[in-house]
Amino acid sequence: MVNTETNRVFTLARRPTGTPDEDVFELAEEPIPEPGPGEALVRTLYLSVDPYMRGRMRERDSYADSWNVGEPLRGGVVGEVVESNGAGFDAGDVVIGNLHWADYATAPGTALSAVDPDRAPLSAYLGVLGMPGRTAYFGVREVARPQAGETFVVTGAAGAVGSVAGQLAKLNGARVVGFAGSEGKVAFLEDELGFDAGINYATTDDYAAALDAAAPDGVDAYFDNVGGEITDAVFTRLTVDARVAVCGQIALYNATELPTGPRKLATLIETRATVEGFLVSDFGERFGEATRQLGEWVASGELRYRETVTEGLENAPDAFVGLFEGENVGKQLVAVGDRGQAGE
Amino acid sequence: MVNTETNRVFTLARRPTGTPDEDVFELAEEPIPEPGPGEALVRTLYLSVDPYMRGRMRERDSYADSWNVGEPLRGGVVGEVVESNGAGFDAGDVVIGNLHWADYATAPGTALSAVDPDRAPLSAYLGVLGMPGRTAYFGVREVARPQAGETFVVTGAAGAVGSVAGQLAKLNGARVVGFAGSEGKVAFLEDELGFDAGINYATTDDYAAALDAAAPDGVDAYFDNVGGEITDAVFTRLTVDARVAVCGQIALYNATELPTGPRKLATLIETRATVEGFLVSDFGERFGEATRQLGEWVASGELRYRETVTEGLENAPDAFVGLFEGENVGKQLVAVGDRGQAGE
Repeated sequence: MVNTETNRVFTLARRPTGTPDEDVFELAEEPIPEPGPGEALVRTLYLSVDPYMRGRMRERDSYADSWNVGEPLRGGVVGEVVESNGAGFDAGDVVIGNLHWADYATAPGTALSAVDPDRAPLSAYLGVLGMPGRTAYFGVREVARPQAGETFVVTGAAGAVGSVAGQLAKLNGARVVGFAGSEGKVAFLEDELGFDAGINYATTDDYAAALDAAAPDGVDAYFDNVGGEITDAVFTRLTVDARVAVCGQIALYNATELPTGPRKLATLIETRATVEGFLVSDFGERFGEATRQLGEWVASGELRYRETVTEGLENAPDAFVGLFEGENVGKQLVAVGDRGQAGE
Repeated sequence: MVNTETNRVFTLARRPTGTPDEDVFELAEEPIPEPGPGEALVRTLYLSVDPYMRGRMRERDSYADSWNVGEPLRGGVVGEVVESNGAGFDAGDVVIGNLHWADYATAPGTALSAVDPDRAPLSAYLGVLGMPGRTAYFGVREVARPQAGETFVVTGAAGAVGSVAGQLAKLNGARVVGFAGSEGKVAFLEDELGFDAGINYATTDDYAAALDAAAPDGVDAYFDNVGGEITDAVFTRLTVDARVAVCGQIALYNATELPTGPRKLATLIETRATVEGFLVSDFGERFGEATRQLGEWVASGELRYRETVTEGLENAPDAFVGLFEGENVGKQLVAVGDRGQAGE
């Protein structure tokens, strides 16, 4: 499966307009790179594709640097060290880092972290124990702050972040309602993750009425991954002193015109609600805490997760585009290589 | 000026659609009421008209009870006690309370507070030392929280709340920029109140460009009284960890259709900004602190204020409607009676 002779690398062929199609991605072949001093050569095992990457494709900076046309795409990667040139790792070590959409990449040792393959499946380090899990952890704990007896609503509820966020709110003792895009996802939320109610937004015309049924006491804490019309409805049901954690707005990321919607600020006066955007990177000093706590909950069975794994680096663009079509349940990953097949 | 034979009382004739016109207000004549046990009869000296009252005219509850058709309108009143029926006041005492738009009203003594006529002009108790001043005080201090060296932007800057909010931000050491609706108001902000810059929104096409000139480092703290397109522009200039205090949305209060505008939540992710609505009533336990502190600043000359006084109860509707046309500078009041002319 893995091409061991050359390295395949996805680059940004052009900036997309609207939903990215295959013309946006170019798969180049190049020699496997040599690690410079202090660097390691890493073979990709799993590549993470995430909604935030759509922002990187814009000219205008998102909260991080834009990707440049002609340069490799980047993402969270769990990989195996093939060769260490004084990077502080041994060949065969499993590491995580922000690397290329590629079979192989080099990186400074300081940009890589060791991963313990015996503690959890490797893929989990890109999902429930990785960036999405930590995003849910800090968004719930520090921003949305659901309390026992409160009602917590999450959008993108069957996704990598939302599925963890809802379960953490449940652990806090809140009533948890999730919006997701299929009957299968709703069943996953209700039957497997213990949500109190799931709402299938794809078959629901009146989100506010659906909320009145699922969250009859209103919405005390809202974890928003999606934005758009679902969020409009949730805002009409916020309670006094409600907290809104704005994590993502995937419904808007592919918009070509400035999206408009009902003005919401007057609602905030009536409710004295707080709306706060957050980035997981702002909690960097507490990543250890989050990963440890999430790991304990996974080990105890209190926190469950699913992954959607697409096979083959060449299919990474499809996996990425599928995020916007709601094709994934749980964390969307691309399986690129198998462990111990470094081809040397 | 005051009709001492009968009492004039404005009632809500019908609920307005859009901007209230004179058909909304009905001026009834009735006998001067008798205070019941524990009540006082109060003669109105100044009546406050405020933008929030538009919300009371709706069927749907605002954050407080709607006004009912056929019942007296209410507002902040500074008045003189004519007769106390065990209310704990003496005839001639000056009091403040939430009373009718009327020449006279009765109220339980517990719903009235004494006002010291020697400490400040009576009208100030409805403005800089009253609800608008306290609204600015808590909105700046607890919600927008401008720090030294930061940039603070306020809309409705020449109004009762905005003019105080900007000065308090200035006392905190912030750069202060205010939006107001005329050259005269801008001059008032810059020359009299010490704002760093005023922007005349009535003659400005591109609010964002005007902000870039007046607030070149972006907006760290935003105190919003107005909403609408100015707020849209300010949101595009928020800095990382900016705070938005939503105090009012006067641009929208007379809307007959659900107002729409650019969706803003994605901005909050990029900036990790916090948007929080607030009501001064939530800070009720600290009103004494606010009034004392505001009084000290007024006495020291650090806090300046203006009032727009409309003469005659019969003109209260005009004064109210004028709020939405930006006719007032500083606090809009209605002078209803003079002290010591209780007509007994």
